[in-house]
Amino acid sequence: MKVLVIGANGQIGKQVMDKLSETTGDIPVAMVRKEEQLTDFKNRGMEAVHASLTGTVEDLAKAMQGCDAVVFTAGSGGHTGYDQTLLIDLDGAGKAIEAAEKADVSRFVMVSAIHANDREKWSAIEPYMAAKHYADKMLMNSSLDYTIVRPGGLLNEPGIGKVKAAASLERNTIPREDVAATIVEVLHNDQTIYKSFDLVTGEETIGEALKGI
Amino acid sequence: MKVLVIGANGQIGKQVMDKLSETTGDIPVAMVRKEEQLTDFKNRGMEAVHASLTGTVEDLAKAMQGCDAVVFTAGSGGHTGYDQTLLIDLDGAGKAIEAAEKADVSRFVMVSAIHANDREKWSAIEPYMAAKHYADKMLMNSSLDYTIVRPGGLLNEPGIGKVKAAASLERNTIPREDVAATIVEVLHNDQTIYKSFDLVTGEETIGEALKGI
Repeated sequence: MKVLVIGANGQIGKQVMDKLSETTGDIPVAMVRKEEQLTDFKNRGMEAVHASLTGTVEDLAKAMQGCDAVVFTAGSGGHTGYDQTLLIDLDGAGKAIEAAEKADVSRFVMVSAIHANDREKWSAIEPYMAAKHYADKMLMNSSLDYTIVRPGGLLNEPGIGKVKAAASLERNTIPREDVAATIVEVLHNDQTIYKSFDLVTGEETIGEALKGI
Repeated sequence: MKVLVIGANGQIGKQVMDKLSETTGDIPVAMVRKEEQLTDFKNRGMEAVHASLTGTVEDLAKAMQGCDAVVFTAGSGGHTGYDQTLLIDLDGAGKAIEAAEKADVSRFVMVSAIHANDREKWSAIEPYMAAKHYADKMLMNSSLDYTIVRPGGLLNEPGIGKVKAAASLERNTIPREDVAATIVEVLHNDQTIYKSFDLVTGEETIGEALKGI
């Protein structure tokens, strides 16, 4: 499976790239904004394309050409203003969805945020949650075979391979590595199509947890 | 027709209130955030309800109860940050749409912004345009009988009653009074259901212009 990873240079994206190429024998393609990032991935023997979420839908569709799936794990990050939240987390996602439809790449895995679907639980960073909420809704309203993964608080510690996944969970944390591993399993599990779920550290293997969503 | 006007205290909203009550014999209901605004409208013999776009969908549905239509002409305004753009222009609109569905108020007229549908024309205030773009998309994806009015640059001068309306127009200006008059005509013209159009000053009467959209 050839998979375009949008946000490949991010902390989850890098691990998705590695796991796809090392573990499952898929061909991940890193979508990156900067020339040096492109070189980095290529030097490591990986495919990479140069495109930006601030570009046009046509540019993004071109970057997706020949791929079987898209993973969206980009974000404007915590250090930019809400203008970037609107332009990247909301409109960047919206453009990626349109581009996937245009390029006939039907499978789309979105990395969202825990409780993005449930306004009553937006205790903090409400404006960010609103952007994620509508990006997810646009995906659900699209023609794509989507899965929406809503991880809890992200940790940099090593993954333990044990998670909890359900439509609604109490807020908890999860290592980024376990999020990346879940994304990879989701790509290979068509039972996850048209599903959205919260994801935190738990006691089941990822495969078991995905059976219950 | 009983019409909830969201943003009734705004510059367009006030004129929609006046025109609905004076001209067409409808019953406008002002949705306002502040107690003194509620009193103002009531002192002028108008109906008003106290609710906020930062409240719950349930609160908004309650405010709409018994209405036949909703006009959304609220906005966070130019003096707040993009956090408010996300919370009011995007999520406030999204909540109002959900509330109308919940309250079985099928007719919904959205005041958007010229070119909100067309990213390539977002020369300025891109983050704001993104918020309007997705608010409009949510409405189009809803079950409501919508009309989306996308006025050009808003002027405070008196209306001339002559406009141009089409799916795509060159950027131009329009008096707020003519936008308000168009909204009122749209509410009484079911040919405008499921239509979205740019609106600027022109040479046709509003009725003539609406025939061409």
